[in-house]
Formats: sequence, structure tokens, C-alpha cells
Amino acid sequence: MKKKKKILEGSTKKLYSTDEPEHIIQEFMDTVLKDGESKSTIKGKGAINNQICGHLFEYLEGFHIPTHFVKSIGNKEMLVKKLDMIPVEIFVHNIATGEFCKRFGQKDGQELELPIVEMFLKKPELNNPMINNGHVVAFGMATTEDINQIERFSSKVNAVLKSFFTRRGLKLVDFKLEFGRHKEKIVLGDEISPDTFQLWDSKTKERLGLDKITSGESTPESAYEDIFNRIFKS
Amino acid sequence: MKKKKKILEGSTKKLYSTDEPEHIIQEFMDTVLKDGESKSTIKGKGAINNQICGHLFEYLEGFHIPTHFVKSIGNKEMLVKKLDMIPVEIFVHNIATGEFCKRFGQKDGQELELPIVEMFLKKPELNNPMINNGHVVAFGMATTEDINQIERFSSKVNAVLKSFFTRRGLKLVDFKLEFGRHKEKIVLGDEISPDTFQLWDSKTKERLGLDKITSGESTPESAYEDIFNRIFKS
Repeated sequence: MKKKKKILEGSTKKLYSTDEPEHIIQEFMDTVLKDGESKSTIKGKGAINNQICGHLFEYLEGFHIPTHFVKSIGNKEMLVKKLDMIPVEIFVHNIATGEFCKRFGQKDGQELELPIVEMFLKKPELNNPMINNGHVVAFGMATTEDINQIERFSSKVNAVLKSFFTRRGLKLVDFKLEFGRHKEKIVLGDEISPDTFQLWDSKTKERLGLDKITSGESTPESAYEDIFNRIFKS
Repeated sequence: MKKKKKILEGSTKKLYSTDEPEHIIQEFMDTVLKDGESKSTIKGKGAINNQICGHLFEYLEGFHIPTHFVKSIGNKEMLVKKLDMIPVEIFVHNIATGEFCKRFGQKDGQELELPIVEMFLKKPELNNPMINNGHVVAFGMATTEDINQIERFSSKVNAVLKSFFTRRGLKLVDFKLEFGRHKEKIVLGDEISPDTFQLWDSKTKERLGLDKITSGESTPESAYEDIFNRIFKS
């Protein structure tokens, strides 16, 4: 398998084509978008995210959730199946916090009785407006069957990951997923990493990752290392 | 039955208590909110909306959709059951137009293959954010059963009214509904009137009501009279 040309560069990841038409390379970069605009660098983030993401994708496959992950092929790179992506971002919330609370006037830190699954149209030029199953089907992005499958997978990912993190003394607060199609089947794509999920310490309710960086309690590097250690060394 | 004190004054309606604790009076005003701010008056609007709304609520009851309508008791007033309102606005879209198109970057005037049912939290101080069934249940506003019932009623109201208007040479573009509880049952409340639905002429695609007023094609008074005549005299 040979790496060929770059096909996409996002704010935190790059995608490369390979000589295998069904596979592409997903590279996790050290960059992070500040305030949705200027980029800064967190040394080691790409490698940490690549390892966490690969581990979680493999773990989910064990629970019959199909993902695009094929194998890790380097420090910052994984080989993934090439998906036909559905331009929808799925957010799952277990605890109301941050932007979610502001949007609905909810108290910060409240555990939700039932997880909330939100969908947003991936159109940054329209500020990613919220949608529901009806929009997805009416706009021709997926069939009713597909979007129901995506909802079921999202809830299952939540259940599986919640208990994965609970065993490590962590609360899964919320996370983002993106799905695509591979040979007519719905497959989990994109990434699951500290860039796309929020974790709190179960006992102390300490907020890990980005929250800790923003509050100045931790350097960006050690915030990512901390999450890595809690996942793999606890 | 005696009218007692005013319990609520909105931008287009007033509610009064009566000497019957289960019943209140809903008055349709001639006022209209311009740009969501300043009020102006359209002579005759209250009476037209009261008549259309009463007629449609009665019509829907015939299709086993429970509404709060009891009877018309005057030119601008109807007696309605007192509901425990659920603070959610339901919008049903059959044709993509206006704000809906801007929000999603859709072409104006496109018929949707399937109707889209949207829900918004009624919190003007938060700009009525969009929500889904999950939020409604998690925020304790309704049970899963109730919100599923509300969705079923909304789709049924759409099917019934679409054919009602089709027979009058009109297309039901979109409309808003609000529901509440009466003796533990989900009941359609608020209003269904030219203030809450949009109609187009089926053949010419001419936009009636507010659109015609904004474009200057029609005086406000004659726009409402036109809708009244098309519903009752065609």
C-alpha cells in the first residue's frame, strides 16, 4: 500500500489517497483550531488521538458497530475504508454543559435522564444548522432506514463507550460522530478522540481536555497526555 | 358562562378566565407584529381568524384530533378548554420557502418529498432554539409517549388540512401547532389561522396572506378577506 496525494486537509486531520482505491490514509495532526479560527499546535496530540481513535474503533467493532478503521500504520496515521460521507454531524449528550446549556438555558453539569442525540447539517457557511431525521430524508442525504440505523448506532456507541470510560473512572459527557456509506452499508467514519469527546473525572467531576486547557489548569500537552494515561494506564 | 379577568395578552391573542374553571376565552385581535417588534392593526383580522380557526378545529375533531375548541361565542372570541400547555412550537413544512430555505440553503418553492416536522422550544429569550423528541423528554416537558402522540397528531393534521385546502384550489405550504394537556390527554391548542399557516394558489403558485402584504400586492385587509373567501366561498 502506497500513500498517494492529499485529498483533504481539515483543521485537525489530513486525508490521503492510496494505491488501493477502497482505502485512504487518515492523518491526525498536532494542530487545533482556536475560537474556530486561528490554528495552534499541541505537540504529541496527533499521535495520542491516532492511538485512542484506533483503539476505540477496534473496540466498537467488537460490539458489531462497523467503523472505517482498518489498521494503524504509523505514529499519526491510520488506514481507513473510503466512505461516501453523509454531511451530518451527530452529537450525543449525557451531561448538559457548555454550548448545549447556553442554547437551552439549562443548568451546567446536570446529568440528563436520557441521552440526547442531536443532528446538525454539515454546512459551515450556514453555521451547521440543527436538523432531524425528516430533513435528512427530505434533502436526499439518506433513506429513512439509513438514518434510523445511524441513530441506533449512535445510541449503541454511547452505551458501549460510557461503560468503557466508567471502568476507567471517567464520565463520557458528550461526543460527535460522523457516518458514511461503504458498499451500501452505514459505517462509522471520521474520528473518536479527545478532539471530539468530553470526559470528566467520575469522582471529582474535574473537566479533562480542552476545558482544562481553557481554564489554564493544564498545558495543552499534559491535558492530552493525561487523557491518554487515564485510558491506557489505569 | 361569564368572562372574568385577562390572564394573558400575546401579540395577536388575549386569553380570559371565565366562571367555569375548565374553560377560558380566546380572543383574536386585529393586531399583527411587524418584524417581531412594532404592532400594527389589520381591521377585521381578528374576526376572520376566529371564524377560520373555529371551523378548522371543528373539522379536525371530525377526524378524531382532539382540540381545545368548545364553541364560538362572538365575532372575535371562542370558548376553549383550559390546557396545561407544552412550551414547544411544532412547524410542519410541505414546501420549502422563506426562513426555512435560508436556514438550510434550499431552493425556494421546492415541494418536499415528505413533510418535515420541526420542533422549537418556546423560549423567546433564547430565540426559540430547535429541539427534538430527546430534548422534550430529557427536559421533562413531556413523556416519550406524549411527544410521539404529538408527532402523530401533527402529521395527521397536515394530511387532513392539506386535502381540505387542495379541494379549495390551495396548497398548504407550512403551519405551526401548539399542544397541551387536558385531563392527562394530549390536545391541540392555540390557533390554526392565516397568522399561523401559509397558503399558495395551487395553479398560479400565488402566495397569499402575509407574503402578498409584504410584497405590496395587496392591502393587509384584502389579503385576509381573500383567504376567508377562498376557504368559505369557493
